[in-house]
This record gives sequence, structure tokens and C-alpha cells, in this order.
Amino acid sequence: MAPPDHTDSGSPAYLAGLLLRGRDVLVAGAGAVAERRLERLLEVGANVRVVAPDATAWVAGRAEEGALVWHRRPVAESDVDGAWYVIAATDSPEVNAAVAAAAEARHTFCVRCDDARHGSAWTPASYNVADMTVAVIGNRSPQRSKAVRDAIHRAMEEPR
Amino acid sequence: MAPPDHTDSGSPAYLAGLLLRGRDVLVAGAGAVAERRLERLLEVGANVRVVAPDATAWVAGRAEEGALVWHRRPVAESDVDGAWYVIAATDSPEVNAAVAAAAEARHTFCVRCDDARHGSAWTPASYNVADMTVAVIGNRSPQRSKAVRDAIHRAMEEPR
Repeated sequence: MAPPDHTDSGSPAYLAGLLLRGRDVLVAGAGAVAERRLERLLEVGANVRVVAPDATAWVAGRAEEGALVWHRRPVAESDVDGAWYVIAATDSPEVNAAVAAAAEARHTFCVRCDDARHGSAWTPASYNVADMTVAVIGNRSPQRSKAVRDAIHRAMEEPR
Repeated sequence: MAPPDHTDSGSPAYLAGLLLRGRDVLVAGAGAVAERRLERLLEVGANVRVVAPDATAWVAGRAEEGALVWHRRPVAESDVDGAWYVIAATDSPEVNAAVAAAAEARHTFCVRCDDARHGSAWTPASYNVADMTVAVIGNRSPQRSKAVRDAIHRAMEEPR
């Protein structure tokens, strides 16, 4: 049997809507990259654990409010235990690789923000309209997915 | 802190692109509902295990070709072990509930085809264009997500 040809069959990623409300999500790192992911995770009601020695003011503020839990220390492999979903967003490729490897061993999906191909999940470009979410994901650059998302958004909002 | 208000912030599902190539996926059931999910799972290269006493001709054919593995028996909770992602698509709500509970205990995402709210993941309405995938997911009916997907598709294909 020939291997499947993805060139005309969409992205190689399987788009799934994860019901994260009340479910444990680990975010390793608390910089600008982590921040971008945290916003939507909090919006869907995930129980977010952030593990990082330092954090942006926004992350620190959300922790202070009780919207997420911030463990102020370097991430350890055991932090992956219990997580449904993992975001590796530290500024160290080595640490991100170790987090992704720990997630892989547990069959837990992990986004590697520094090196998407070596994680087990990608974050699509998405936008929200009323109670719906539209997402675009591709095989090539995130910039291209974002451009398509924006084109769809414009097309959807054009007057008829 | 007030609970997050989802009415204007998209669906409560978090859209993720799962890289299932070579990763183990359990599909419980092998009827028409399972079939619809299997097509895309095979397209992205998942290692699919189907567990069901009976199967449609299409599923049986894919098993014969070696595109998936079909275990011809009722599903057991232990079948969830090792899976990255689970589709509960049998024709028995009790069996689907048991599969979903086993997945929940392992923190493994599970789509319940008979009762979406009691699973941990939803399948968005999606379509593929070239090497991209566009997905729509909503808070209400799958029919509405499909209608929006189709509208986007038409808008994207309209001549300028």
C-alpha cells in the first residue's frame, strides 16, 4: 500500500476540539510566547499550571487573581504527570525538548513552541465569532495559516 | 473572580491540531459513524485500532488492506491503554460511556459520538484545501458548524 499523499488532503494535523474546562494543562514558560497561548486556555476554562522561574506582568497578574497557578521554579519532567495537554514555551530548546519527551512517553499531546515538528500538536490560527471558533492549520508556515484565517474572517464579514 | 463568559468568546472547545502520524488511536465501533471519523484519521497517518464485533464493508476492506487493525470483538476498557486519542462510536450508550470513563481516568481525550457533552473532545466540521485544513466548531449544533464551514468554503472559492 502506498503511503498516504498529504499534498491534496489538508494539513497532516488532525483538528480536534478539546474540552479543557476543569482539565489540567501544563504551560512550561511564562514569557510572551506562553502568554499568547494562555489567553485562549483561560477562556475555555482550563485548569492551567504555569511552571517558570520568571513571568511576564500579565501572567503574574493572572496568577495573583487566581485565574491560573504559577509555580515559580524551573519545570521538571514530573510536572507533565496529570496534564491533559502540555505547552512547552520556555526560552530553552533543551528544556522544551525534555518536556516534549516526557509528554511523548505519557502519550500526552504537547506543543513545542520553538520547534513545532518535534511536538505532538500544533496550535492553529483561529478566531472566535459569537459562540463559534474557526481554525486554520497548514503544512507550511504559521504565517500562511494566519493569512488564510484573516481572509476567511474578511469574507465572512463582508456585506452581501 | 467571575467565571469566564463564553457567550462571546467562541466555542468552549480548544482547537488543536493533533499530529497523529504513527500514533495510536482507538476507535470503538465500526459502523457508519466510526467510518466518517476513520477517513480523516487514516489520511493523517494515525495508527488506528478498531475494536468492534462487526464492521461495515469499508472498514473491513481497510483492515484487509492493512490500513488499520480491526480487533473483531467487543471493546474492553483496557483497549484505551496506550491510545493517544479515542473515538467512542459504538451503538451502545453504555459501552461508549465506559470507554469515555476509561479515557477520562487516563487523561486521554475521547470523542463520544452519541453524547458529545460527556466526552472530552469534539470533532469540528472541517474541510481541506491544498495543504491546509479549516475547521469550525461551535457551542450549539453540529449542523450550525457545518453550515458555517460550507459558507466559508463558498466564500473562499468565489471568484474575485
